[in-house]
Order: sequence, then structure tokens, then C-alpha cells
Amino acid sequence: MLKVGLLGAGRIGRVHAQAITSHPGCILSAVSDALPDAAASLASEHGAKARSSDEIIADPGIDAILIATPTDTHSDLIEAATGAGKAVLCEKPVDLNLQRAMDCLNTVSARGKPVMIGFNRRFDPNFAALKAGLSAGEIGKAELLSITSFDPAPPPVSYVKVSGGLFRDMMIHDFDMANYLMGDVPQTISAVGSSLVDAEIGAVGDVDTAAVTMTYADGRIAVIKNSRRAAYGYDQRVEVLGSDGLLQAQNMLENTVVKSTVDGVVGAKPTHFFLERYMTAYRVEWAAFVDAVEGGSEVPVTLQDGVAALAMAEAATLSAQTGRSIQMEEILKPVAK
Amino acid sequence: MLKVGLLGAGRIGRVHAQAITSHPGCILSAVSDALPDAAASLASEHGAKARSSDEIIADPGIDAILIATPTDTHSDLIEAATGAGKAVLCEKPVDLNLQRAMDCLNTVSARGKPVMIGFNRRFDPNFAALKAGLSAGEIGKAELLSITSFDPAPPPVSYVKVSGGLFRDMMIHDFDMANYLMGDVPQTISAVGSSLVDAEIGAVGDVDTAAVTMTYADGRIAVIKNSRRAAYGYDQRVEVLGSDGLLQAQNMLENTVVKSTVDGVVGAKPTHFFLERYMTAYRVEWAAFVDAVEGGSEVPVTLQDGVAALAMAEAATLSAQTGRSIQMEEILKPVAK
Amino acid sequence: MLKVGLLGAGRIGRVHAQAITSHPGCILSAVSDALPDAAASLASEHGAKARSSDEIIADPGIDAILIATPTDTHSDLIEAATGAGKAVLCEKPVDLNLQRAMDCLNTVSARGKPVMIGFNRRFDPNFAALKAGLSAGEIGKAELLSITSFDPAPPPVSYVKVSGGLFRDMMIHDFDMANYLMGDVPQTISAVGSSLVDAEIGAVGDVDTAAVTMTYADGRIAVIKNSRRAAYGYDQRVEVLGSDGLLQAQNMLENTVVKSTVDGVVGAKPTHFFLERYMTAYRVEWAAFVDAVEGGSEVPVTLQDGVAALAMAEAATLSAQTGRSIQMEEILKPVAK
Amino acid sequence: MLKVGLLGAGRIGRVHAQAITSHPGCILSAVSDALPDAAASLASEHGAKARSSDEIIADPGIDAILIATPTDTHSDLIEAATGAGKAVLCEKPVDLNLQRAMDCLNTVSARGKPVMIGFNRRFDPNFAALKAGLSAGEIGKAELLSITSFDPAPPPVSYVKVSGGLFRDMMIHDFDMANYLMGDVPQTISAVGSSLVDAEIGAVGDVDTAAVTMTYADGRIAVIKNSRRAAYGYDQRVEVLGSDGLLQAQNMLENTVVKSTVDGVVGAKPTHFFLERYMTAYRVEWAAFVDAVEGGSEVPVTLQDGVAALAMAEAATLSAQTGRSIQMEEILKPVAK
Repeated sequence: MLKVGLLGAGRIGRVHAQAITSHPGCILSAVSDALPDAAASLASEHGAKARSSDEIIADPGIDAILIATPTDTHSDLIEAATGAGKAVLCEKPVDLNLQRAMDCLNTVSARGKPVMIGFNRRFDPNFAALKAGLSAGEIGKAELLSITSFDPAPPPVSYVKVSGGLFRDMMIHDFDMANYLMGDVPQTISAVGSSLVDAEIGAVGDVDTAAVTMTYADGRIAVIKNSRRAAYGYDQRVEVLGSDGLLQAQNMLENTVVKSTVDGVVGAKPTHFFLERYMTAYRVEWAAFVDAVEGGSEVPVTLQDGVAALAMAEAATLSAQTGRSIQMEEILKPVAK
Repeated sequence: MLKVGLLGAGRIGRVHAQAITSHPGCILSAVSDALPDAAASLASEHGAKARSSDEIIADPGIDAILIATPTDTHSDLIEAATGAGKAVLCEKPVDLNLQRAMDCLNTVSARGKPVMIGFNRRFDPNFAALKAGLSAGEIGKAELLSITSFDPAPPPVSYVKVSGGLFRDMMIHDFDMANYLMGDVPQTISAVGSSLVDAEIGAVGDVDTAAVTMTYADGRIAVIKNSRRAAYGYDQRVEVLGSDGLLQAQNMLENTVVKSTVDGVVGAKPTHFFLERYMTAYRVEWAAFVDAVEGGSEVPVTLQDGVAALAMAEAATLSAQTGRSIQMEEILKPVAK
Repeated sequence: MLKVGLLGAGRIGRVHAQAITSHPGCILSAVSDALPDAAASLASEHGAKARSSDEIIADPGIDAILIATPTDTHSDLIEAATGAGKAVLCEKPVDLNLQRAMDCLNTVSARGKPVMIGFNRRFDPNFAALKAGLSAGEIGKAELLSITSFDPAPPPVSYVKVSGGLFRDMMIHDFDMANYLMGDVPQTISAVGSSLVDAEIGAVGDVDTAAVTMTYADGRIAVIKNSRRAAYGYDQRVEVLGSDGLLQAQNMLENTVVKSTVDGVVGAKPTHFFLERYMTAYRVEWAAFVDAVEGGSEVPVTLQDGVAALAMAEAATLSAQTGRSIQMEEILKPVAK
Repeated sequence: MLKVGLLGAGRIGRVHAQAITSHPGCILSAVSDALPDAAASLASEHGAKARSSDEIIADPGIDAILIATPTDTHSDLIEAATGAGKAVLCEKPVDLNLQRAMDCLNTVSARGKPVMIGFNRRFDPNFAALKAGLSAGEIGKAELLSITSFDPAPPPVSYVKVSGGLFRDMMIHDFDMANYLMGDVPQTISAVGSSLVDAEIGAVGDVDTAAVTMTYADGRIAVIKNSRRAAYGYDQRVEVLGSDGLLQAQNMLENTVVKSTVDGVVGAKPTHFFLERYMTAYRVEWAAFVDAVEGGSEVPVTLQDGVAALAMAEAATLSAQTGRSIQMEEILKPVAK
């Protein structure tokens, strides 16, 4: 049995707690949170103990740490947990600061402990099936990738302010999806963004609607579209044009009912938001982490993957600000010095 | 906390065990099975005790009994459990013998304990959404109901022999679905059936492909189609034509990936079989039972509903054998005398 | 060039006039109608002459006759036209009276002139593609056929009165479609019908909602559903379950636009009625007739096919009236004496 | 009756000839082509005369000229025809040289004769329905437009060489579609392109796969994706995200047949190429031109629209070459001086 300590008892921490406790090979031993009541409540629901993060990390009886705390604590906690010999699954992003994330990667690399970044969408059965089709050569060689990723509604501006901006907070999922599907990081990134959904988002210097075009060393192209608002729900689609065809992963719907009346043929909306859409993905993600930890194989999403996505977000942010196409080299060189 | 005894640790018993233990208000106390090892194994997985059915029914510490045993024990166990003051959820069908089921209904009715029959499809989110649309008047008054229900592959002939035949074993789900959606039992039933899938099924006197037409007192019409084999998986569709439109519940698919190549545009197959398709329904069903038991309200699928569906299966069997349209009265009168 | 005389300048006659004149190998020479103005108007639009039916049939310069007159004149006109050596394409049904249609068939058979019945749906690209897939063995052996055929709105009661009833007037198309797809006529027919759409239709002794189940000598089964009203338009769907899968021909839609809002995902309605849905089919039908006439091959829909569909309508009418399953033999024997 | 002269009897000229002759208010009087046989053949099919372009333009009996000649003759012929007082419908693009097109616009503007550019896709019933929904406010204010436009197979390299490049030859349709749907020209254009489909296309300095991002003065964003090859056929989709929802125009399919087997659920491919997909659009386009000419209203696609799309193609070409985001001002200023 893998004994797990969960750091962070907020919304996403609760999702992970469920994934951990429903895994037949895991025990949720302890939960921490900056709000002691949140930790206590979640711990008691699952028969775990509420403890401080330090205690959990220091406990030799705990094998793995799931980090679901605020982003600015991720790097420190990854370093501390691996330093204490734990396997780590950390929520995305690694950090908002690329240099800090790179330093964390350097620190951690030598330790040889598994560190996985929680890019949950890779474990969505639909995207995973698309990836499998791509890998099996069902459409030949990939040429043109498109990712559409719209949230149902914008977050509060208070959140936007500290989020690192749309590219680091929201599109980072899509950058990782691109890396996952294309099997490479891009060479150039060109981004545009506007504040069309909520003027206050623009007022704090962020965008809520954006499009990014990326090119790869071998000429392949990827396009990502983001909006903070889709009136009809959570829109999460991917399509890849290849030399022999097209693979699309379409939205999951709330149900399969179709109503035909004089007003048209009406189907259900997409599942509302990420908790509904990706509930299965979170469970599969956790199981993949456990398999890697117990089997001694490499985790399916590495800390390096987390850093790569962050670097792409950095490039996109810079491109949107300057109107220039950014070479990924520009971003990575000074950092990787 | 509702303390539950589970009778039957076979495939469907295991499904119910999961639904019971994942319900926050329930404890699975005990499991029985004719095969002691099966009971012991399932009990240990869920921290329950393996006991005999008699012991479980007699235990005053147990509040509710879930009956997932072979069909020929259902009536006896319903009577015993209600006699011991338990609430009961019993798998369908109530019995293969209509007279015995009617007797059970009479015996149990006086006791006032909740007895629910496990027509799980009523709790499928898709059919439930269709029913909600119908009840909300979205297509006006229902006129013509169609149910398509194909299994992926026929059961072994050894099972078919003791199953009571396609109408009692398989189409009984669709009869209940018709009653649920139409809010009434039909007046006439006309059935045809053939053995096209497996000649051995015909050799033992059963059919594997069938169509039934039913009419209601107010002139409404329902059509049910069954096949024991659909090469592409479990095909479970319902549509209702009403005065103002059409409501359809379509199949759930394995995933949302669509592949377009020179050979056409290929989507995923329906979820393979009832465990995949109705996993959610089993959980919702159990929760509905618990709500009724604890809230003192009527169970959403009554023993009377179970008897009605069985009577319809009886009528269909007779119609297919004789080539006559059967009045439901013919079936119910001698029984209800 | 095939010189064509068109008998009947009503709505369907106008459709045929277009098909004839847009065919590069045909000339529309003459048009007749009981209403001289209708004939004159349609003739002038296409550079043809308005003449009487007798004159057209007698004219040795005319090669082929298209009969689009009221049903009760069909048999007489078929006999007259073939007697004058013409090739004939006659609108469905052959006659409302089965005996009269059989007599016509006997009369005409000896003459060896091509007589085709206008079951236009066989030439719809969607149904034709389904048939091609079936013939190519794409789903193995057909087992269970379903035809859904709903009109957008009921005809006036004045029409219903003289229509011969839903089974002869409307479902006759579906009977022919069943014969086309199954490659055989059924052995038994069982029908139910109700007047749910318009009470006046019931008052004149007809039904507006009906379901028919048919069985074939080899055990195959077919189900046909009809309604005189679908609020969302013309619903024309076919599906066939075979030993290796399912083939479905779905509705054609007005356009491909999909609107997703907070109210759901809305697509276009089916094309409104038969003129929109089957415009292509009428052109293909005419071309197939011309090809057969000019190539000396058998017409793709024979007078015998027309009589078979009529006999099935007769059986369904009788079944709905008596509540009995009708053997096709019962219908055909006395007639074929 | 509008008397029409058709310049150009190639593939697209033949399409237009059909649209002209099937219009009840038009007569195709004359056809010209650089290949006299082509003109003669097409003219004879439609009862027209084969003449030289000069003769046709000079003929006072001809009201309107349809220009379907090679692109490098368009500007000259537009000027000549309007100079002779004709109404003109000219195939896209106006010219490959933006300065020449601007000069043509200046020359023609003063003459007040209707000049329409043949952006046929505006008249596709699906895109027109999407536009109508947008104009009706069905999804609120448009924010993010996506156009997917893939050809089934690349043209021969001999054609590519003289085509002006993908942006001027192929994407120009999408630029016009963007202008049509957004009701404005963009402020900035950023393009990437690769040669992935056919290395020879790259060898002659063109691209076969491209993505363009455009921003508008009010912050709206548009993305266009092009590929010269889609193994599954002609992929022509548009979607617009608005403040209240999403409008999508999906592909038209060859038929509505769906086959479900053990291999999946297979639907038909998109209609193969532009002749199949846009046949209706060409007829509607011509009718719209005739309506404008006869009604004295402005043509629905102006010469200015043609110039705007060409300027966007120019900007995209420059952006793809330089890796810079191009301000439309840069392109238009020197030209409009």
C-alpha cells in the first residue's frame, strides 16, 4: 500500500483525495492546508489525519506527496518532498517564474525521485484515444494541430491578478497537450490576445481571449485558441490533420438526449466544467502515477514537461505583448545558462 | 447509516456492492451467496461479513436487503425479508412465473415495507433526461414510442434455457421502460420473434430477434425491438414522437474521437455492455432507494411495476407463439382473480 | 431523343416535368390535365403542347408516357398507354383496388412494354447508398429492418377521405422500401393504427399514426412506423440490423449550422417535405427509367412491385381493423385466382 | 431578359454557364475562350455563339459579362467591360498584383457599373445561414472566428508556380469569408506556412500548410487554417465564438448513411471538392448578381471586397516570409497613396 500525504485541501485537493482513496493500492494518511479547518474536514472524511506540511514531508511512513497548494509554493514543496525521499505528484504549473521552475528542475534532477506534474488532460480518455490513434499512424504523419479550449465563465478578477495571466494559468494546459500530441516542443510561438469578455481583466493587464500559432523544427504547425467564456459550457476539443486524415476529440455532452421541434434539433451541452469533464482523468492520472512509482518506471508527465509548458507560456506572453514571433530559444537560452 | 445485507455475490451483486459502499449513508454489513467463497471474497473486499441469507434476513441490525440472487429465489426472499421488516431492493424480474409474482405482491402489499424492483435503466441519466423532457411537455403529448435494445452478443444457450425466454429475460427491461415513459400499461401486445442469431437458441424454443407492438387505451402506440446481437456493441436507444416533436436518447459512446480518412468518418462504438453503460444508473438507483427508505416516500419502481412488466412479457410470449394480438386483460384477469 | 407525354399537371406532375426537361436525352412533347389551364401553363413553361390524354397516348410520335394523374385513373391509363406501345412511368400507387391492379398487371404483362412504378425513394442517394452497403455485405445478413416515416403535417380531411387510407396512401412507400431492401415480400403483416393527430381523420375511418410488424419466410423481421405529423419536418429514416452490424440512413438537414448557447446545441431541422428531400431522387428515377427504356433492360421498379406494395397495404389495413396478424397468402390467393 | 457574355470556357466557366442558363431571367448569348474549341463546344451546348472577348464586350446587345478567364486578364477585362457599360461578375482573385487591382478599382469606381467578385462561398447555404444567425445576434457579439479550409489534394506544381502562392490563390477565399462574417478588415495579420504535403511546392517557394491569425481594431480575433491536402475530402468549416455562444457551419456529407460494425461507427465523407460542395452556391451567387443588376442595388460582393482580400493575402505572404506580424496599414498605405 502506498501511503500518501496530501498538501492542500481546496477544490482540487478534494478531487485528488477522492482519486487517492478510491485507488485500491493507496491510503490517504495525512492532509495539510493553510486553513486548518479545511485540512481537518477533508482528513476526517477519508479517515486521514490533519497535519502540517512539514510534518507530512518529514514522516518516514509516508511514501508519496500530492501537492495541491497555491502555485507559489510548488517549487519549494517539490524540493522539500524529494529531499525527504518522497515521490511527488504536483499540480500544474510548476511555478509562475520560469527561472525558479528551472532551478527546481536542476535541484530535483539529481535526486532521482519520481516527480510528476498534474497535466490531467493527458489522461482524459478522449485525448488519450486520439493520441493512441496518432501513435498508431491512423492518420499518417501529423501536420497541423488545433486545440480549442474555452472555459464556461471567467474567474474573478482577484484570481486573474495573481494567476500569472491567461497563457501561464489557462493555456499552459494546451501547451502541454501540444507537447504531448506533437512529441516535441515548438521552435517559434506567436500569440495575440484581447480582453473581450471582461474589461476588468484587461484593466489588470491580462487577456481573456487569445490565439497562438506555433511552428516546429520540421515545419509542423499548431494553433491554440482560448477564451475565458463559452456560454454553452466547457469547450475542450482537439484536432490533428495528418498526411492520411484527421483525428478529432470532440466535447463530452451532459447526456445523449436530442429534442427535435419546430425550433430545430437540440442536443445537450458539453459537460459543464473541468470537474465534470475530467473526473475520470484525475483518477487515471493518479493510477498512472502510482504505477510509475511502484513499477520504477518514468512518470508519464515529468517535471521537465512542466518546465517546457511554462516556457511556452512565457514565450506566448512576450509575443502577445510585443507583437513579435518568439523563438523558443530566446526564452530557454538565458534560463538554461 | 443504513445497514445493508446483500444476497448474491455474482456479477450483478458485485456491482451493487460498489453502489452500496460508495454511498455515504450506507454500510454493507453482510453478503451471502450459494457459493461461500464468492460471498467471502466480496465481503472481505468491502469490510463486510459473509453470512447465510437466513442469518442476514433475521439480523435485527440490518435495515435493508438487496436481492441479487437467481430469479427463482426472488419471490421467496422478498417475502422473507419484508416479513422480517426489511426494506428491499430486488433485481428484476420479480419471478418468471406471473402467478407467483402476483402472490408475492399480495403477500407483501399488506406489510407496508418498501420493496423496489431493480429496473436500473430508469436511472440512466439519458433516459431520465428524456423522461424529464417528456414530463415537462417539451414535445407535447406522447404518441409513438420506440425502444431499440440490442445486446452485443447472445448469452450461452445454457443460460437461455433457464432464462424464461427473451421476452421475460431481456425485453422485460424495455417493457418497464415503456411503462415508465408512457405512464401506463398497454391494452394490447403483439409480438413476433425469430431465431436468427444462434440456431441453438431456436432449438431450445426461444427467439433472439423480436419486435413488439403495443397499443394503449388512449390510442398511443409503442414499438420495441430486441436482438441478442449487435456486432458494434450495446445498442440502447429510445425515441418518443409527440404532438410537438421528437425526443431521442441516443447511445453513449466509448469516447468522442472521430477519425476522417479516405475510408470515411469513423466514430467510437457504443459503450460495450450494461456494466459500462449503466454503471452510473446503478449508483443513482441505489441512492433513490435509500432516499425513499429514509424519507418514507414511495420507492420509484414498485413491486407492482415489476409485476406489470412480467405480465407484458407473458403476453408477448403468448403473442409470438400464437400469432395473435393479446389483450393485457387476458393475461391479468385469470391471475388477478 | 425520347419524346415524352406527361399526363397530369398538378404538383407532382410539375416535379416530373422538370426531371424530364433537364434530362439531356428527353423532350417533353405534350402535357394533359383535367384542368386545361394547368396543362396549358405547364406546357408553355417547357415549350410543350397541351393536349388531351387520349391524343397524347394515340400520338405515334410520343415514346413514353409519365402518368401523374389521380390514382383512380392509373390502371386505365397504364393499359391504354401500353396498348398504344408506349413505355410508362406511373406514379404510385397502381390503384387503390388490389383486384383492379392485379388485372392491370395481367393485361399489361403480355405486352412486353416497360412499365415502371414511381417509388421515388429507391432513388434517394441515401437509401440507395444504404442498399448498396447491404448488397455489398457490409453488415452481413440483414435481420431486422426499421423504417421511420413521418410527414410534417396531415393532409386535409377531404384528401384523406379519398386516399384509400394511411396504409395505401402513405405507408405504401415504406412497404416498397421494405421490399427493395429485404429483396422479398413478407409472409405476415401485423398492423396497429390510431387517430391521434387529427380527430377528423379518425372520424372518416382512417388512422394518422401507425406501426406495422412484418415477418419473412426466413425469419427476418421488419418494423414500419408512420405518423402524419412531425412538428420538426419530414422524418425519413431507415435502419437495418445485420449479423455484422447496423446500417442507418439518417435525415437530410436544411443546413449544417450548429448553434451552441446556454440553451443547448441546436442543429437544423430535416429538409421540410418530399419536394425538398426527394428532388434529386425524382431526377435519378427518371434517368433510370430512360436508361431502362433505351437500353432494353428491365425497369428498376416493376408493375409487379407496385402490386406487391398495394397487397401489403391491403393486409395492413385488414390487420389494423381486425387485430389479427395477416398472412400475405390470404390477401394474394383470392386475387391471384 | 439579361443577355450574358461568358469569357472563359474552362472548368469554372462551365459551372457558370450552367448557372446562367438555368436562371429563368438570363440568356447566355456568347462564349469566348483562348481555346476556340472550348468556346465552341460550351457555346453549342447552351445555344450560344462562340465569339472573341473583344466582340462580346463590344456588343451593345449584351448586358452583362461573366469573367472566368486566367487571373492575369481579370483587371484588363473588368476595365474593358465596364468601359463598354456592362455589368460584370468576375472570378476571384481580382489580380495577383495588389497595385494593379487597386488601379482597376480606381478606374472602375467612377463608372458606376456593377462589378461583383465571385467569392462563391458567401452564397453557400450553410455559411449564409451562419452569417444570418450572427447578424440576428444569436450568439451575441462575435469575438473569435475560426476558418478551416482544406483541399482534398494539392494542385500540380505547374499550377502552383503561377498561382501567386497559397495565400493569394487559396486562402483568399477565407480572407473574404472573414471579412464577410466579421464585417470589417483586420488590423494585423500574422502568418506561418510550411511545405509538408509536397516538397516540390516548397521547392518553388510556396507553402501547402498554413495558419493565419488576425486581430481587429476592436480586439476581435480570427484564425484561418489551410492545407492543400485532406485525405478525406474537401474540409470547409467555420466557427464563431460570440459573447452568448458558438455558431458552427460543418461539412456537407456525401450522404447520411452511418454504418456501425465491430470497427466503429462510420459516416460518409465530406462532399469531395468545390464543384460538389458549392454547386448551389454558384447558382445563388449568379441570382444575387442578377438581382442587384436588375434592381439597381449594390452587388453583394464588391470590387473593393476583392481588393481587400487580396491585400490580406499580400500581408499574410509577407508575414510568413519575414516572421513579423503585419499591420494592414503597411500594405494599404503605399498602394492607396
